[in-house]
Amino acid sequence: MTDFAYSPVTPEVVEELRALLSPGQVTIDEEKRAAYSRDEVAACSWDRPYLAEVLVFPECTAQVAAVLRFADERRIPVTPRGAGTGLSGGAVPAFGGIVLSLERMNAILEMDVDNLCITVEPGVVTSEITRAAAAAGLLYAGDPCSGDASFIGGNIAENAGGNKVIKYGSTGASVLALEVVLADGSVTWFGGKRRKDVTGYDFVKLLVGSEGTLGVVTKAILKLVPLPERIVDLLVPFPDAASAVAVVPRIMREASILPSSVEFMDALSVQLAERFLNRPVPHSDRAGAYLLIQIEGNDRDALADDYERIGRFCLEHGALEVFVADNRNVRDKLWKARKAVGEAMVAGFVQSALEDVVVPTSAVPELMREATRITETHGVEGINFGHIGDGNMHVNFVIRKPRADWHEVMDRALRDLYRTVRRLGGTLSGEHGIGLKRRKYMEEVMDTAQIALIRRVKQAFDPNNILNPGKIVPDV
Amino acid sequence: MTDFAYSPVTPEVVEELRALLSPGQVTIDEEKRAAYSRDEVAACSWDRPYLAEVLVFPECTAQVAAVLRFADERRIPVTPRGAGTGLSGGAVPAFGGIVLSLERMNAILEMDVDNLCITVEPGVVTSEITRAAAAAGLLYAGDPCSGDASFIGGNIAENAGGNKVIKYGSTGASVLALEVVLADGSVTWFGGKRRKDVTGYDFVKLLVGSEGTLGVVTKAILKLVPLPERIVDLLVPFPDAASAVAVVPRIMREASILPSSVEFMDALSVQLAERFLNRPVPHSDRAGAYLLIQIEGNDRDALADDYERIGRFCLEHGALEVFVADNRNVRDKLWKARKAVGEAMVAGFVQSALEDVVVPTSAVPELMREATRITETHGVEGINFGHIGDGNMHVNFVIRKPRADWHEVMDRALRDLYRTVRRLGGTLSGEHGIGLKRRKYMEEVMDTAQIALIRRVKQAFDPNNILNPGKIVPDV
Repeated sequence: MTDFAYSPVTPEVVEELRALLSPGQVTIDEEKRAAYSRDEVAACSWDRPYLAEVLVFPECTAQVAAVLRFADERRIPVTPRGAGTGLSGGAVPAFGGIVLSLERMNAILEMDVDNLCITVEPGVVTSEITRAAAAAGLLYAGDPCSGDASFIGGNIAENAGGNKVIKYGSTGASVLALEVVLADGSVTWFGGKRRKDVTGYDFVKLLVGSEGTLGVVTKAILKLVPLPERIVDLLVPFPDAASAVAVVPRIMREASILPSSVEFMDALSVQLAERFLNRPVPHSDRAGAYLLIQIEGNDRDALADDYERIGRFCLEHGALEVFVADNRNVRDKLWKARKAVGEAMVAGFVQSALEDVVVPTSAVPELMREATRITETHGVEGINFGHIGDGNMHVNFVIRKPRADWHEVMDRALRDLYRTVRRLGGTLSGEHGIGLKRRKYMEEVMDTAQIALIRRVKQAFDPNNILNPGKIVPDV
Repeated sequence: MTDFAYSPVTPEVVEELRALLSPGQVTIDEEKRAAYSRDEVAACSWDRPYLAEVLVFPECTAQVAAVLRFADERRIPVTPRGAGTGLSGGAVPAFGGIVLSLERMNAILEMDVDNLCITVEPGVVTSEITRAAAAAGLLYAGDPCSGDASFIGGNIAENAGGNKVIKYGSTGASVLALEVVLADGSVTWFGGKRRKDVTGYDFVKLLVGSEGTLGVVTKAILKLVPLPERIVDLLVPFPDAASAVAVVPRIMREASILPSSVEFMDALSVQLAERFLNRPVPHSDRAGAYLLIQIEGNDRDALADDYERIGRFCLEHGALEVFVADNRNVRDKLWKARKAVGEAMVAGFVQSALEDVVVPTSAVPELMREATRITETHGVEGINFGHIGDGNMHVNFVIRKPRADWHEVMDRALRDLYRTVRRLGGTLSGEHGIGLKRRKYMEEVMDTAQIALIRRVKQAFDPNNILNPGKIVPDV
């Protein structure tokens, strides 16, 4: 365990930060500090409180650079923060220090239709980018469930996934370039307005998903792609998970169709969403699993052919019915149900652990069986939903009555889950990140060579370990 | 400049290598060493000869690990080698030592149709993977022009691009996982059979394109996607480059079509290909530029609609004609012409520099004008072709009569080119790599912070600098 001695944020440090920025950009207000020391991870996940010592709100790259240079010299930890919608404690200040909010850097700087890209600051809400792209006749393909609230900077820091990864990849697949402030306050650009680049190591992809531990993103250039003219969603209830899973490769291989989404919900997820939205979902009394499949295209007839083929495969695998939603209104309702599951779960149970494991798609049925075994072994309930097309399943553990030993129970259940996932060829997190929440479990899925490399790469970028310490890197 | 003192390959070292592997897997035959010390970079690019001291031919991961462990202890440089089809000197042993050929590790280990992926050894020829995938009804989307000869290991090491990047991304976009032997001989896996993964830093993407400087890939799991049922190519002659370039964003934005290829050839490229293949290309007497556009789909009518829209856009931008190739035979001829240009160029001129710059697509017309200026300034001829949909243009300089000052002329012309490219928002290489050839030009496009990070990451992975020294990392 490396021991980093950090300096406290004294009144003098606060004054210096105010001088570096402006008084209105620095606060030590306790209520605000508490609010900016949380993300969407359930409070029950932490065994102690975490609190920023000071909040700073830079308005430009130069100010971010000034803060980092100062913090690096003084050995004060800096936790970059987007909208606080993260699900792994990535924005929680594990060692106090400075929380650096990017919320005031929220401009869309350029829409470049000739080069099919958009340049944004990190504090732009993801769905604003989607809307700006659509207004220019293009698609920004990042689509996390939290897109109406999350910032693009957070999406980049976590390599957010979401509902269109199967076709378009995670957030990183859309990132062409990043302006980054490094730990010592120097500013550089990785990448550019270019669709390919093998000039040196791929630091764009290394920064994506690095959770603010290697640098702070201050601008991003995002790739845009053609906007499909038509979208159709299919809602397909199945008697069980196994039959639902078996359909997915047939769609891709036999029908040569690449859906934009293949989402999965188990029976309990659907019932939760029904109650939360006060809206019934068909067959919720007898379906064991639902698929929500989205396909896109420009040609109405070709798209109809596609969904008929998919529907046929589903029925051959025992689907109870195939509902086709080809108008906006019905589609929006379906997706509202899907996106509500996470929130409904947190609202419906007193303690919950929202997990994010990923396994080979073919292993999902076994993962579902194992999830049941784990819940029974450890005396909790399970709720499962997620992005089955990618093998990324939100296997969740919840309880209805608070219990004092929740941390111990959870720790045992999670270790059981992660070991199972490793055996199935999977890993801890597909899209939520490691953050503070899963750092102690890294050894469950990584060998010593990998952990040593993580440490050394962190050291290469941030020798004084001021950038978001306590995240990703085990025991640092 | 870091000074690494390497040990020579003495007869005793050769004997130890023979004992580690087997006598038939180690050779010091001079003719073979010479053959294994070259790639496809024109000999005129080097100012001195490079020669491996010994060649080793491992047959499994354990043997690669044994060689690396031994070389690391003895401080002997190791240059990993695929098929030798590289275009940047990546496989040239800049410091002598061991050339480690992966040619005997050439098995397709598993076709996993349920998880839509294929596991291969690094010595498999790229087009064999394409064929194996197609036989299973799937597409491996990597498509470098050298695919009939190159190894997948080399494609991964260079992050090879090719003809389908605009739709599917470069090689790295298809890589799900890598088994890697690290510099000290330890063996680990990065990634897995999973379409998304945010557990730790993205070392899969960091290894891709790292030119064998961070580790040696001994297995790869590659993503497969649906195989389109129909393909159509359009060959479109234009009066000049600018009008050809202007069509590209309109196809994506107004017609909402994502072509699988948009290739560009200037008049001289086409004439070269004509002579090389002894086959005429229409309008080669008056066209200033050609686009070769490929679109894919499953529905015949929808695809016809698409190519009619594209054809209309082309004609609106002054295309001289639009040729539609919807049968395999004609399509193969077109692509043969496109893929022959590079070889025709090398065959047709006594000295040549095949370049690989990449710029924002909208800057391609200015790049073309600047390429003309540069050839005039430095007294060489220019030939331009490439992947215009990605802004990745092979801007090449050639001469018809040998000249003694070729190195100096080229150095000046290339610096001029790279400075121009930087001004246009581009960089040195889109798909061929830095290798030995472009290492000295890294400072033209990178700042000191970036170069320092490259050095530190290299150091993190390979502290004794035994892995392919002389590549990518400036002055190491």
